[in-house]
Amino acid sequence: MKELKGACIIGQSGGPTSVINASAYGVIDTALKSGVITQVLGAEYGIKGVLADRLFDMGLEDPEELRLLKYTPSSALGSCRYKMADPELDDTDYKRILEVFKKHNVRYFFYNGGNDSMDTCNKINNYMRSVGYQCRVMGVPKTIDNDLYGTDHCPGYASAAKYIATSLMEVYQDAHVYDTGVIVVMEIMGRHAGWLTAAAALAGEYGAGPDLIYLPETDFSMPAFIKDVKRIYEETGGCIIAVSEGIHYKDGGFVSEAKTAANDGFGHAQLGGLATILAEVLKEETGAKVRGIELNLLQRCGAHLASKTDIEESFMAGKAAVDNAIRGINGRMIGFERSVQDGKYVCKLKLIPLMDVANVEKKVPREWINEAGNGVTHQFIDYALPLIQGEPDLPKVDSMPRFAKLKKILAE
Amino acid sequence: MKELKGACIIGQSGGPTSVINASAYGVIDTALKSGVITQVLGAEYGIKGVLADRLFDMGLEDPEELRLLKYTPSSALGSCRYKMADPELDDTDYKRILEVFKKHNVRYFFYNGGNDSMDTCNKINNYMRSVGYQCRVMGVPKTIDNDLYGTDHCPGYASAAKYIATSLMEVYQDAHVYDTGVIVVMEIMGRHAGWLTAAAALAGEYGAGPDLIYLPETDFSMPAFIKDVKRIYEETGGCIIAVSEGIHYKDGGFVSEAKTAANDGFGHAQLGGLATILAEVLKEETGAKVRGIELNLLQRCGAHLASKTDIEESFMAGKAAVDNAIRGINGRMIGFERSVQDGKYVCKLKLIPLMDVANVEKKVPREWINEAGNGVTHQFIDYALPLIQGEPDLPKVDSMPRFAKLKKILAE
Repeated sequence: MKELKGACIIGQSGGPTSVINASAYGVIDTALKSGVITQVLGAEYGIKGVLADRLFDMGLEDPEELRLLKYTPSSALGSCRYKMADPELDDTDYKRILEVFKKHNVRYFFYNGGNDSMDTCNKINNYMRSVGYQCRVMGVPKTIDNDLYGTDHCPGYASAAKYIATSLMEVYQDAHVYDTGVIVVMEIMGRHAGWLTAAAALAGEYGAGPDLIYLPETDFSMPAFIKDVKRIYEETGGCIIAVSEGIHYKDGGFVSEAKTAANDGFGHAQLGGLATILAEVLKEETGAKVRGIELNLLQRCGAHLASKTDIEESFMAGKAAVDNAIRGINGRMIGFERSVQDGKYVCKLKLIPLMDVANVEKKVPREWINEAGNGVTHQFIDYALPLIQGEPDLPKVDSMPRFAKLKKILAE
Repeated sequence: MKELKGACIIGQSGGPTSVINASAYGVIDTALKSGVITQVLGAEYGIKGVLADRLFDMGLEDPEELRLLKYTPSSALGSCRYKMADPELDDTDYKRILEVFKKHNVRYFFYNGGNDSMDTCNKINNYMRSVGYQCRVMGVPKTIDNDLYGTDHCPGYASAAKYIATSLMEVYQDAHVYDTGVIVVMEIMGRHAGWLTAAAALAGEYGAGPDLIYLPETDFSMPAFIKDVKRIYEETGGCIIAVSEGIHYKDGGFVSEAKTAANDGFGHAQLGGLATILAEVLKEETGAKVRGIELNLLQRCGAHLASKTDIEESFMAGKAAVDNAIRGINGRMIGFERSVQDGKYVCKLKLIPLMDVANVEKKVPREWINEAGNGVTHQFIDYALPLIQGEPDLPKVDSMPRFAKLKKILAE
């Protein structure tokens, strides 16, 4: 494979995570040191920054600030949710991207995101090949949802999982403080896949877990839910429930949108999220004190509770994307493969064709969910526990986080 | 002063904090090692456990588990919200407490709580003196609200403040990720005092703070609020707002209860908390994407983000209560006095008469709030910053918190 000299672009896309910047740093650091990549450009707001030719020259940044990206949550370059058109129908965007690529002699394109972003990657790759422009396109996985196809797990998931499990353990202590019981409904992100909500079960390994867990992989029944909660509340004087924002009735209607199965009769048209809706139902049904807690953005930006394993793997994914591209690999997403060596978790990298990943969602296997659909099995614990290990050495000033401060100087 | 031999009771009261158990450990550890206190009894659910004669023999606990109390959030012995009657009107409870005290030869009573708990302490102390039963009663302060009279600050406040400021810094990163702006309304605890909400301002010292802060110490005006937010949103493309749950209109009506000043016209009778209400108003008024985030229980049990300073001071408060009681002090709450030595924050202990503390609320001084009532001055930062310093060495197993596990064996 002939060495391909030229600039690279790194873009961040979709919802941010606690460690997406660790992957960006993996790309940037490796590219800057490569001796092959002539300029490292950071796209402002993902592909939108490419279209707008707003590209930061990452070589002008302070190396120490770049290093801090490993511990800085959210997308430091800016992100977007931008769906690319089918180039057969409308190639305007693609032409513009080609123009910008040519202008900066971009020969490497690294895109860090989830399913949609891999679709973007795949389309750009196909287009560049169709017009004969030599450019190596690599996907770097990212999603707290953990729903990317072909990889054992996704960068970003473990840190969010650790945040959720730790927070639940703490809330458990708080919810068991009075002799008058409390019911807690904790709403966790994940519209279609229940990986994050399942992470609440990790707290149970340490004696402070949820009593009930509801994932979007099974159909939700309000009467069964109320029955479950009532039983536990009567038996133990309290109940802690972890629910995915995406739980839905058998007819597909989201519980959060108060679209209930026809005969359920629990519909409440109101503001407030799922936790509020369920808390209100349980208040009426049990008379107990009920707290609805929505973890909201906190779970995806809580870098202070990041998993060191996740940070290092995210960095490795970014680094591997550059290393492989320089070696001539193209049109692949970096994936993870798990193995066990001497009883220890080992994570190896693999390459997955972008077209296999694009727009596919990987869900929690049904056999990892209990039969009643209100808990997860130990197979899930065995899967998730190695991923959340390790405390990162988070840089602090005055006991407050010290996040990366980028100069963001536009490339000429 | 003659040495007073006998048992002691430690009780926890009111809403829990991340470090109330550190104070309990200060009491328990010091009492167990005192050579004067013959038995250390932990009251189950605060004063309710005394009334029910449900007292745990703390001397039977594993010392290592007791040590873990320093890092275990919430009230490990159980707490209560129980208002004692005026003994002049109804002395039933007091007679019962005396009976239990006599049964176990209780000569020391340590009560760990906020204003109401100091009121309980004071009433019990007065009653014991009135009936000639020798017992030394000491209050150990505790409240995330930081509203106790006579002390520079309160155990529990700093850890919650650190949780709030850190979370806000992280959410700030997340809220600035897209080119389409986001407005975030973060709802923080504190019904009458704004200390916790003011802590959001600490994030601003590190470049990621709220644009607007509203405390219950000033009257809230919905039109002024909307004008403030609109201005900032138009200027910067985003806006982050920290609001106290206790903000109220000039007429005293809580905004969270949607009781609006007569002519405001923004009343929404609905479920969901203040953050949801304000988010909805801002959505209508700006058309922007608005996120309402309620920090909820997380802020008061987030021990993983505790301040080491707070933990050590909380421990010291418990220890000092025992040391002083053994020396013959009675009817006092331990308080903190701040001084600066060689440019460094120093916290000294002081003794405050219980009757001075009972039922008084200390609020954020008006001069620490800006004139417009939508931010705090640097005097607040100077006050709060030393309190949140230091990372505690939190015990972990598998990267998850290792909280104390007490046997809770009832005393005979």
